[in-house]
Amino acid sequence: MMIIHLHLKTKGSDGISTEFGTSRDLDGTNDISYNITYNKPDTDVKKGIKKPFTEVIKANIGDAHAMGQRPITFLRQVVALCTYPNLLDSPSFPEDAKKRARRILQGCGGNSLGSYSASQGINCIREDVASYIERRDGGVPADPDNIYLTTGASDGIATILKILVSGGGKSRTGVMIPIPQYPLYSAVISELDAIQVNYYLDEENCWALDVNELRRSLNEAKTYCNPKVLCIINPGNPTGQVQNRKCIEDVIHFAWEEKLFLLADEVYQDNVYSEGCQFHSFKKILYEMGPEYYNNVELASFHSTSKGYMGECGYRGGYMEVLNLHPEIKGQLVKLLSVRLCPPVSGQAAMDIVVNPPVPGEESYSQFIKEKESVLNNLAKKAKLTEDMFNKVPGVHCNPLQGAMYAFPRIFIPSKAIEEAKAHKMAPDMFYCMKLLEETGICVVPGSGFGQREGSYHFRMTILPPVEKLKILLEKVKDFHIKFLEKYA
Amino acid sequence: MMIIHLHLKTKGSDGISTEFGTSRDLDGTNDISYNITYNKPDTDVKKGIKKPFTEVIKANIGDAHAMGQRPITFLRQVVALCTYPNLLDSPSFPEDAKKRARRILQGCGGNSLGSYSASQGINCIREDVASYIERRDGGVPADPDNIYLTTGASDGIATILKILVSGGGKSRTGVMIPIPQYPLYSAVISELDAIQVNYYLDEENCWALDVNELRRSLNEAKTYCNPKVLCIINPGNPTGQVQNRKCIEDVIHFAWEEKLFLLADEVYQDNVYSEGCQFHSFKKILYEMGPEYYNNVELASFHSTSKGYMGECGYRGGYMEVLNLHPEIKGQLVKLLSVRLCPPVSGQAAMDIVVNPPVPGEESYSQFIKEKESVLNNLAKKAKLTEDMFNKVPGVHCNPLQGAMYAFPRIFIPSKAIEEAKAHKMAPDMFYCMKLLEETGICVVPGSGFGQREGSYHFRMTILPPVEKLKILLEKVKDFHIKFLEKYA
Repeated sequence: MMIIHLHLKTKGSDGISTEFGTSRDLDGTNDISYNITYNKPDTDVKKGIKKPFTEVIKANIGDAHAMGQRPITFLRQVVALCTYPNLLDSPSFPEDAKKRARRILQGCGGNSLGSYSASQGINCIREDVASYIERRDGGVPADPDNIYLTTGASDGIATILKILVSGGGKSRTGVMIPIPQYPLYSAVISELDAIQVNYYLDEENCWALDVNELRRSLNEAKTYCNPKVLCIINPGNPTGQVQNRKCIEDVIHFAWEEKLFLLADEVYQDNVYSEGCQFHSFKKILYEMGPEYYNNVELASFHSTSKGYMGECGYRGGYMEVLNLHPEIKGQLVKLLSVRLCPPVSGQAAMDIVVNPPVPGEESYSQFIKEKESVLNNLAKKAKLTEDMFNKVPGVHCNPLQGAMYAFPRIFIPSKAIEEAKAHKMAPDMFYCMKLLEETGICVVPGSGFGQREGSYHFRMTILPPVEKLKILLEKVKDFHIKFLEKYA
Repeated sequence: MMIIHLHLKTKGSDGISTEFGTSRDLDGTNDISYNITYNKPDTDVKKGIKKPFTEVIKANIGDAHAMGQRPITFLRQVVALCTYPNLLDSPSFPEDAKKRARRILQGCGGNSLGSYSASQGINCIREDVASYIERRDGGVPADPDNIYLTTGASDGIATILKILVSGGGKSRTGVMIPIPQYPLYSAVISELDAIQVNYYLDEENCWALDVNELRRSLNEAKTYCNPKVLCIINPGNPTGQVQNRKCIEDVIHFAWEEKLFLLADEVYQDNVYSEGCQFHSFKKILYEMGPEYYNNVELASFHSTSKGYMGECGYRGGYMEVLNLHPEIKGQLVKLLSVRLCPPVSGQAAMDIVVNPPVPGEESYSQFIKEKESVLNNLAKKAKLTEDMFNKVPGVHCNPLQGAMYAFPRIFIPSKAIEEAKAHKMAPDMFYCMKLLEETGICVVPGSGFGQREGSYHFRMTILPPVEKLKILLEKVKDFHIKFLEKYA
């Protein structure tokens, strides 16, 4: 029986989310049964079935508001004004929010969020995105024609991959992805019948990306497919590393040399915490490497309303910027997008506020900055706290959380536990995470859902719970881990 | 060179929408050039280039708000309250709107529209959808577990088709679609490399669906593919017919007999105008035909926030209800949906109001009913007006617009015009529509974008412009058509 890799993020019908992955038989439903089991503790708690915990803590998905983070007031004010324009007469909304709402509505057919927008997105919002990119990248020009608003970043990534995949047999498109990866990639690659080409991040070196490993991976892949796309996640998910300039230059040079299409997933660009780390966009470095690179390397980069300090996942807002896309491919892209008509217009409005927030001198500026910095400073604090706590636990090693919003600690699983997992037909880290859930109510995702070096085990945990809750959570994980080691010693 | 059929709805980057279709070379970009030409008049007008008209009237896409229709106040109030919950304290919002907003927010993680929902949609909204279906269908039970909230109906239809398509060569899945059809179907079928199987609606008989024609089409298709899916659009787009009970029974019996998966596109269920016509859902008729049918025929039906009296296209709200879906297929469906995380939550909220509007006794009821009936009565008036006006034009024949929001008149194109169209490498009706646009500023979609019997020509025009504007528009089309006939006599 053929084995395919299908990695998925799933939400149970009771709203408990499980992000996991598994190797699955073509006719099997292992992952579904995982999911059902995974949801059981919560259902049990609701039903009053006695558990050694009183609450399920969902540290498995980057869903900020669900973990108690408050929306950015200004963003919600503008979207509410766009939704119900009668509010434009209300004295309780600030003028700068009204100004933005009027501008967005002028970009909408019939001045209504209820009209279809152009498939590529509302013109003035694409202009705002281009201005944002120029500011972010220190003046590197951005063309609104190269901006496409999307239904979250996931939709943009899936769409770009769809138009890039072709060929059959050994000439089938190979898509290079980091391991560990965010499971959207493996799922879309599997959906498109493309070939997943793994390159490994270097755990010993803070999950750095090494071009030698890219080369090894590419050369191997050339023997069985046509590798055309190189996906980068920076800051990393689930691994949280932030790439330095030199690394990005090396990757770009490699893509140029090998004529690879670069796909830069930069949705965590606002989530950088470690001292000495800074976000560099691939677009900016590409530009600075000179015209030979800038005019030739094909690049698509992605951003979203879902992460950063906004955490507006539900709006499904996002954009992608493309560079050096062949006109024929561009034509295909527009067609593909137009079949789904347009991205949700309220998500486009939310995206606009992310790229066009209040500026100094505007009425809402100080509150906006206060809210934004509060979220980001808290995340930075929690990143450090999590790293430190995990590294105090015997048999756990955690790289610095330089960015994004996850810890991905390596865990030692004793061989007796590995045997028991096998007896249950589970991956050892899935077995570990299930035990953790059953005993503590803490829901994290096994490393096998993201991929990891054979014989190494991890889990991914978000750092989104409020500080006090996070501390309790980390203590519970520590106690669990120590008991787990004792039990299977 | 292989010819494929690709039918698309496209939006120009200047916001002018063109919905059209064409037979296209695999390497060709005819349709793109169509689009550019199609957008030209508007760009020219904006640039001040002299045209025989002062305004482009976009009668080419069912985009109600863009044509001046006002949003339903209650719907927007609830969505605004959900967006910016501070408004829950405002005395200027009615209590019934606040009640609904509170309920929706309670269904959201962290009480925020910014959280991911379950991939299948928010629980309480799926419950509201199920209650709506039960009321609509006179008590036929609906199970919230069978309801999936979607990103507009298009996304639901594309997703269901994706999980149903399989096989290779002669066993590749065939998907039966009406001709004329809504171009989403041909586009998705082409995207999925499925086989498009045409059945023709009977223009001489008010675009009725004849089961003998279904049988002919199916039997032919069996020689070159594996026809498994039967798509029905009721009320029809672009053809506007409303199926009677007998016709639906015949279709269901046929699907049962031939083990076809029924896909019922019912997004125009609120748009029925002709006396004696009534919307019957496939679900209801299926139930009433008894357990042999109800327990066996696989059905997916679709609804949306975009049409009806709401016209909330930009929210990308929708739902589908599935019946008798094989558990394995259901598993695949959940997985596929979960890759894109969740439908836009504000669109889910909008959908909730469509299925859970104010009821008698509630504060907002009378205004809601007034607004709803105003839109629907106007559409009914315009449907009759359009039919009558077209049928007064020599060389034009228009079936009654029983439902939906389009006229699809048959137009006589003289052979000299057909020759000139050929010289321009255009379909004759595309040539006609281009001339109409260039000379009058009226943008409609050639029938070849939807499919039509060979040698017959049509165009699709929305009836969404306000009555007075629609009258002028129809007069202009009439004058144009008469001159066109004279010119090419």
